[in-house]
Amino acid sequence: MTLIKQMKPQDEFEGFYLLKELEIRQTNATPPKDYFDIVLCDSSGQLPAKFWDASATDKETFFAMGLVKVRGMVHLYREKPQIKITKMRPATPADGVSLTDFIRSAPIDSKDLVRIIEQTKDGIGDEEIRRIVAYCLEKVEDRLAHYPAAKTHHHAYYGGLAYHMVRMLELGEFLCRQRPFLNADLLKAGIILHDIAKPDEMNAEMGIVSDYSNTGKLIGHIALASAWIVEAAVKLGIPTESEKVLGLQHLVLSHHNLGEWGSPVQPQTAEAVALHFIDAMDAKLQMVEDALATTPDSEEWTPMIRGLENKAIYRLKI
Amino acid sequence: MTLIKQMKPQDEFEGFYLLKELEIRQTNATPPKDYFDIVLCDSSGQLPAKFWDASATDKETFFAMGLVKVRGMVHLYREKPQIKITKMRPATPADGVSLTDFIRSAPIDSKDLVRIIEQTKDGIGDEEIRRIVAYCLEKVEDRLAHYPAAKTHHHAYYGGLAYHMVRMLELGEFLCRQRPFLNADLLKAGIILHDIAKPDEMNAEMGIVSDYSNTGKLIGHIALASAWIVEAAVKLGIPTESEKVLGLQHLVLSHHNLGEWGSPVQPQTAEAVALHFIDAMDAKLQMVEDALATTPDSEEWTPMIRGLENKAIYRLKI
Amino acid sequence: MTLIKQMKPQDEFEGFYLLKELEIRQTNATPPKDYFDIVLCDSSGQLPAKFWDASATDKETFFAMGLVKVRGMVHLYREKPQIKITKMRPATPADGVSLTDFIRSAPIDSKDLVRIIEQTKDGIGDEEIRRIVAYCLEKVEDRLAHYPAAKTHHHAYYGGLAYHMVRMLELGEFLCRQRPFLNADLLKAGIILHDIAKPDEMNAEMGIVSDYSNTGKLIGHIALASAWIVEAAVKLGIPTESEKVLGLQHLVLSHHNLGEWGSPVQPQTAEAVALHFIDAMDAKLQMVEDALATTPDSEEWTPMIRGLENKAIYRLKI
Amino acid sequence: MTLIKQMKPQDEFEGFYLLKELEIRQTNATPPKDYFDIVLCDSSGQLPAKFWDASATDKETFFAMGLVKVRGMVHLYREKPQIKITKMRPATPADGVSLTDFIRSAPIDSKDLVRIIEQTKDGIGDEEIRRIVAYCLEKVEDRLAHYPAAKTHHHAYYGGLAYHMVRMLELGEFLCRQRPFLNADLLKAGIILHDIAKPDEMNAEMGIVSDYSNTGKLIGHIALASAWIVEAAVKLGIPTESEKVLGLQHLVLSHHNLGEWGSPVQPQTAEAVALHFIDAMDAKLQMVEDALATTPDSEEWTPMIRGLENKAIYRLKI
Amino acid sequence: MTLIKQMKPQDEFEGFYLLKELEIRQTNATPPKDYFDIVLCDSSGQLPAKFWDASATDKETFFAMGLVKVRGMVHLYREKPQIKITKMRPATPADGVSLTDFIRSAPIDSKDLVRIIEQTKDGIGDEEIRRIVAYCLEKVEDRLAHYPAAKTHHHAYYGGLAYHMVRMLELGEFLCRQRPFLNADLLKAGIILHDIAKPDEMNAEMGIVSDYSNTGKLIGHIALASAWIVEAAVKLGIPTESEKVLGLQHLVLSHHNLGEWGSPVQPQTAEAVALHFIDAMDAKLQMVEDALATTPDSEEWTPMIRGLENKAIYRLKI
Amino acid sequence: MTLIKQMKPQDEFEGFYLLKELEIRQTNATPPKDYFDIVLCDSSGQLPAKFWDASATDKETFFAMGLVKVRGMVHLYREKPQIKITKMRPATPADGVSLTDFIRSAPIDSKDLVRIIEQTKDGIGDEEIRRIVAYCLEKVEDRLAHYPAAKTHHHAYYGGLAYHMVRMLELGEFLCRQRPFLNADLLKAGIILHDIAKPDEMNAEMGIVSDYSNTGKLIGHIALASAWIVEAAVKLGIPTESEKVLGLQHLVLSHHNLGEWGSPVQPQTAEAVALHFIDAMDAKLQMVEDALATTPDSEEWTPMIRGLENKAIYRLKI
Repeated sequence: MTLIKQMKPQDEFEGFYLLKELEIRQTNATPPKDYFDIVLCDSSGQLPAKFWDASATDKETFFAMGLVKVRGMVHLYREKPQIKITKMRPATPADGVSLTDFIRSAPIDSKDLVRIIEQTKDGIGDEEIRRIVAYCLEKVEDRLAHYPAAKTHHHAYYGGLAYHMVRMLELGEFLCRQRPFLNADLLKAGIILHDIAKPDEMNAEMGIVSDYSNTGKLIGHIALASAWIVEAAVKLGIPTESEKVLGLQHLVLSHHNLGEWGSPVQPQTAEAVALHFIDAMDAKLQMVEDALATTPDSEEWTPMIRGLENKAIYRLKI
Repeated sequence: MTLIKQMKPQDEFEGFYLLKELEIRQTNATPPKDYFDIVLCDSSGQLPAKFWDASATDKETFFAMGLVKVRGMVHLYREKPQIKITKMRPATPADGVSLTDFIRSAPIDSKDLVRIIEQTKDGIGDEEIRRIVAYCLEKVEDRLAHYPAAKTHHHAYYGGLAYHMVRMLELGEFLCRQRPFLNADLLKAGIILHDIAKPDEMNAEMGIVSDYSNTGKLIGHIALASAWIVEAAVKLGIPTESEKVLGLQHLVLSHHNLGEWGSPVQPQTAEAVALHFIDAMDAKLQMVEDALATTPDSEEWTPMIRGLENKAIYRLKI
Repeated sequence: MTLIKQMKPQDEFEGFYLLKELEIRQTNATPPKDYFDIVLCDSSGQLPAKFWDASATDKETFFAMGLVKVRGMVHLYREKPQIKITKMRPATPADGVSLTDFIRSAPIDSKDLVRIIEQTKDGIGDEEIRRIVAYCLEKVEDRLAHYPAAKTHHHAYYGGLAYHMVRMLELGEFLCRQRPFLNADLLKAGIILHDIAKPDEMNAEMGIVSDYSNTGKLIGHIALASAWIVEAAVKLGIPTESEKVLGLQHLVLSHHNLGEWGSPVQPQTAEAVALHFIDAMDAKLQMVEDALATTPDSEEWTPMIRGLENKAIYRLKI
Repeated sequence: MTLIKQMKPQDEFEGFYLLKELEIRQTNATPPKDYFDIVLCDSSGQLPAKFWDASATDKETFFAMGLVKVRGMVHLYREKPQIKITKMRPATPADGVSLTDFIRSAPIDSKDLVRIIEQTKDGIGDEEIRRIVAYCLEKVEDRLAHYPAAKTHHHAYYGGLAYHMVRMLELGEFLCRQRPFLNADLLKAGIILHDIAKPDEMNAEMGIVSDYSNTGKLIGHIALASAWIVEAAVKLGIPTESEKVLGLQHLVLSHHNLGEWGSPVQPQTAEAVALHFIDAMDAKLQMVEDALATTPDSEEWTPMIRGLENKAIYRLKI
Repeated sequence: MTLIKQMKPQDEFEGFYLLKELEIRQTNATPPKDYFDIVLCDSSGQLPAKFWDASATDKETFFAMGLVKVRGMVHLYREKPQIKITKMRPATPADGVSLTDFIRSAPIDSKDLVRIIEQTKDGIGDEEIRRIVAYCLEKVEDRLAHYPAAKTHHHAYYGGLAYHMVRMLELGEFLCRQRPFLNADLLKAGIILHDIAKPDEMNAEMGIVSDYSNTGKLIGHIALASAWIVEAAVKLGIPTESEKVLGLQHLVLSHHNLGEWGSPVQPQTAEAVALHFIDAMDAKLQMVEDALATTPDSEEWTPMIRGLENKAIYRLKI
Repeated sequence: MTLIKQMKPQDEFEGFYLLKELEIRQTNATPPKDYFDIVLCDSSGQLPAKFWDASATDKETFFAMGLVKVRGMVHLYREKPQIKITKMRPATPADGVSLTDFIRSAPIDSKDLVRIIEQTKDGIGDEEIRRIVAYCLEKVEDRLAHYPAAKTHHHAYYGGLAYHMVRMLELGEFLCRQRPFLNADLLKAGIILHDIAKPDEMNAEMGIVSDYSNTGKLIGHIALASAWIVEAAVKLGIPTESEKVLGLQHLVLSHHNLGEWGSPVQPQTAEAVALHFIDAMDAKLQMVEDALATTPDSEEWTPMIRGLENKAIYRLKI
């Protein structure tokens, strides 16, 4: 079965794919005809597709997020590859294919990721900090296993948020060893809490963000997570003016570093400075790693990456 | 008694003033001699002053924020007027002078200002919004009567914060009449809440800010007030995800308009847009009004005003 | 008759509309066929439309800015609604429809708006200021009744410019009452003059700006209005170096506040600071009000508004 | 006689100099003593100087802009050279020194510069353009001979403005020869008019700007010169909407290129683009030439130059 | 034969043109049909074109950069003119047309340009500077005759780079005469070297840049030319730390003036300041000249020019 | 012996210190008296100091970078502590103090640091990369042991440059383990080379930078190191256009990430992205660590840190 990532113009192919998006449109013909405007994907990537002359039955058979068996061919449209679907039917249980095989996901099983995060939380020595972290984790727990870390920017796949946290925790652990003046409890808590409100900021299913939520647009995950910490303190009977609550709020509020990047205050504790750079480094290197992994090996350059000053990455031949 | 504002180089004067700041320093002489580096003020303004040859007794007699009777003269130092104090004694009850006469304060009695704010709060029709506003007002009530609205930027005097609120409430009322699509309850609440956490952000006495608090630096009044709203909701049993809590948080979070000015989100409700402009207009016009009022009438130009792109204001002769 | 604002995909409709724009295009067919690329509007909004297979007669019958009776249906094209016109004929006198019913216009009759502006001008106490304002008003008088205040930014409709002025005058009157140190004559004059040269800056008909004029591009309404004031002074025998001419020019030149927004000098008189904020507040709140009014009630969010940092406005459900 | 430019710490000297600035100050001694805070200059440069123990007679004898015979020595104060004046008397006619020998001035006699400018104006072929230029020249004519082009930025000396114009005219002439599509009449007029209002923008005497004028601050030389063009047109009966008046205004308004540099519109005619670059190139190269000329030959680097991104210029040893 | 620049909608024409770009695409029809998406050009300009129903033979007959005889008509597509090719055949020797007649090129023969550059190089008095310049010229010599100076920004045509150099050398010569303190050897060398690495930065054929090279993206012509100077010094036995090598590197490294424009250091020698302005002035004026020359005389305005703050140029009717 | 870091106003002390800076100045007295303006330091920090009434002998006895035995007292001058030296003599061999005990230095012996760097270099698998790194290391070898990494920004002490490299190498090693797609040879080489030209950019002795060199100002360490790589390739017979030379140059050229921070190109290989973040993270965390270490424990806040958006760091009391 041809992986989406490997498809080239003029290819013909047949196989199972996911209808990631599907919209019914009409041609300019008189009378106009219905067709499907589709985004077809598998775990290796996605491509736009057209299914012409959709019948009334078709319109009741095919839906977004459904698995299908497709026969089609690839051609160039406005210099980008596009699929023309010539035949399509829904997958059946007999086909033995499963939705989760067709979406991009973190390279580590998300249950394992969540377990590592829980263990790290349990390993926080300070009881009050640990309980605040636990309170916030509970707010998202069911969603932590599958949420992406962003809409498109970085870690935009199933389990991406948890994967981002786990990688940051590794980097944080290294830094605490290299620079013992850093408070490990605070840094762990900061890493777990910094993006903890993302599941409330974005609407996502199967690792795919459809939109920002109203709360996400009007408050944002930064102020939201900061308020969760206060809420936790109130509920757990920890004074909201204590240095711990102050320190945790500061970690969350400052982690985007600059006002124009959404942080109302700038990092002013050692751990807040560390958190910002751990977050930035992990996000940017993941963008690079994912861009290289999803670019065909035959290409010298990845596509441009918005989060890296809109630069592409070059594969040195060394 | 000569008002500070009217003092000109070569003037000699005698009268009561406030020692707004006082530091003991030493001359370069051998052996070094002690002297006082002073900021002398009354309600019309302030000037730097020197008191040379401070004796041991003097050092136990004079303190910052003390009222004193002073004889002195004005001269130019690095092109700015400075006072040389030739004689000084502490004020006594017999002098019949009172601290509050010597500090700048809002032109309306601060008790009246607080009363107007309370009445406005009571006039909020929506009960949940009213109770959240009341909860937050209680947090600062004793300080609302005397806090300034900022360290130096605008309304930097006794009662300045409450005065800023009241003037904004007048402008808000006008706008709600001019544009009935605005929700008056929300706008009133937004005006009262937008700077409500300033007393926690800054340390101030007698309308004079000495410094930002740790909380002020690490969280800032914007995220702080937003957290107070959540705290109020938790304590009052109002769902934290309700549209009202969302709307109030958004008003507070967005009122500085841009990320680089400290707002993690931009105004995205009609009332939030209105609040930002009401706040900006009142602050800027007050800067202009205060600069003109404290500049001698003989001067065509006020000093430069930092909050107005560092421009001075010209008095047109019309 | 279905209002444009209420049209949804799949709707079929019949009624009178305005051909706001009409261009003859050709299909890719061999031989190519002519069709009309149309913008159809009424006072509630506008939508793109196609009229296929335009005959030679059609091409001589239909023109931009003509009223037509249309039968059509709405469909989605590139995720935006578009109209397919199936039948169309020009409106006739017998239809009893009038062009002005089909364009967006200010909510107050523009004759009333002009009258208020004239009365305000007449109420300026200072004779020289009044005569300069009168001179400039005469330059645009016939156009003041119908010009929009901008191409798309704000008040972009029939009478928008006059409506903007009148609303600003109300706000200015409030401020002069709230802060009596402001010179009311200057502020009124500044409000009337600040955008007075817009009719020379833009080419507009029926409240619709087709383009900026050469003068608009090469000089701009700010420097243009400033030059009109000088011209008025020369013609009326008022010294061009007088404080009044200086003050009026300054009001106009500085009202965009910053160099990057087109003002060669920044506000440096009390009235100039006030004018800038009155202008900004009225423009922004009108954008919000108009965006909410033209967005279907069923939508939580308006479209993005360029003049508001490209943010959409949310309708709080309170 | 030692030139200011050549003075080094520890030098003792005697000679004639100009008291460019003089202020009476008082020491911290008890009782305080008067002293003069002075800027001493000759045509090669300037240095700060102190004259201690100024007597009552001294205070009636010495004034700013007076020529004096000085005996003094140079020492370092805060890492910069400063003069200590040990003896000083006013110059007398018998000394045979003249004020103009002691100020910096353009390297060409300013009468010659004005003559060249007048001749260039007379050489403008288009009569209307020529008459407008002549009208504006008349407004400043007596001042053109001595005004500097800026306060400190560039050409800040006697005749600097005229010298800047003449050099730009040479460059303009070269460009018109190199690129004949440029309209020489327009370019000449643009060069003469672009800074023509500077004498109204700044208060200057003997090539030294003491301050910006009120008009300079509130209108600026750009909008001012643009208004002069309109005034000229009105007075000379040339239609203010003509392409010539439009073109000349555009040249003046756009010559600073960007809004943040004070131009309300950007260059949009060929000559306006040329004018901006001629102006920038001449100003910057003159800054470099003057900085090198006033820096002692023993120094590898000039002082930092504000107008060149605050960079110093290095003298390559080639 | 109709020049591309003169083609207007509805025109029918026949003549020889260059297939600057050609891609095979497919229509949405079932089954899809092949067509050519073409950019057709001659020396006066270029237009997009379609050739429908491309046969298998056509696909083997027509290629990018081939000369063809075309019959076609012009129509509007999305408000821009587009060509519909109705008949097409490859040019044959018998047609007597030559590729170089169909591409844009500098107005002076590129052999002459190269000769002038070589002569200028030979005229550099300092032997070491001359040999370094010669070494770098050799690296590009065969390409200097045809490379453009940029992809689209300016001088984007056959011989554009050499033409840019020659024009700059003229301007440099004028400046050295006007300001003799400039070192002519350095300035000549700087002009020849500043863009000398462009042929390694971009892939170009017939004056048309297809893409930036990997070296161009990863190093850029500025650091590249600076390294060539070091390489030259090493190979020629000139000390790499000498003032000459330092001065030449500095000229190249600083010529874009600011970090955000790609220069790692800012101009800090007199010649480096001159070089930056010579480069900027020549590039911008050429943009203006070329935009006016390629815009039909009937148009008042050229298209917007990216390199001129995205402004269009107006043709004053004087 | 009192450490500089622990000195508080009113302290009297005696001990050995380093005269980091010493300048002879003169008082305003008549006749003026000589005094020394001094910066006194030990390994814990530095303070300004005055030594009044310097005799002729004193002026021949004391010099910058000399060790002295000092008796003095601390007082406040302009709100900052300053030392008044009452007695001072040069240290003698008998005192048994050594210069290196009085300067700040990296916490690891610089010989060990250099050894680690050499070993890392030897561990680079690719021979050509290893030889280029070795060539560049040789250029600075004697200076690598003691140079600081910057003038004041970060690692501004003896051995700071080598310490910065070693810490970055640790971080790089961690990242290569965490993300195996990174090329370890390239990353190691990039870390060693990125600041390798700093010793040529700055003039430093004993870890104290006195100034930038001419080469540093005119070329900068980024372009300089890039040229060294080319020089190495030329000398070692490695093709300058090879992917390895390209990759190494790119690492060095892009490591400041943005043009405004001095990089002419932005990171476009995986290792270049990693290098930038490793460099930034190590520099910033070291600033934090050093600021906390040199701030008295009694202080909640460090001084403001220029490299951290001018923010101070707070010591959370957790």
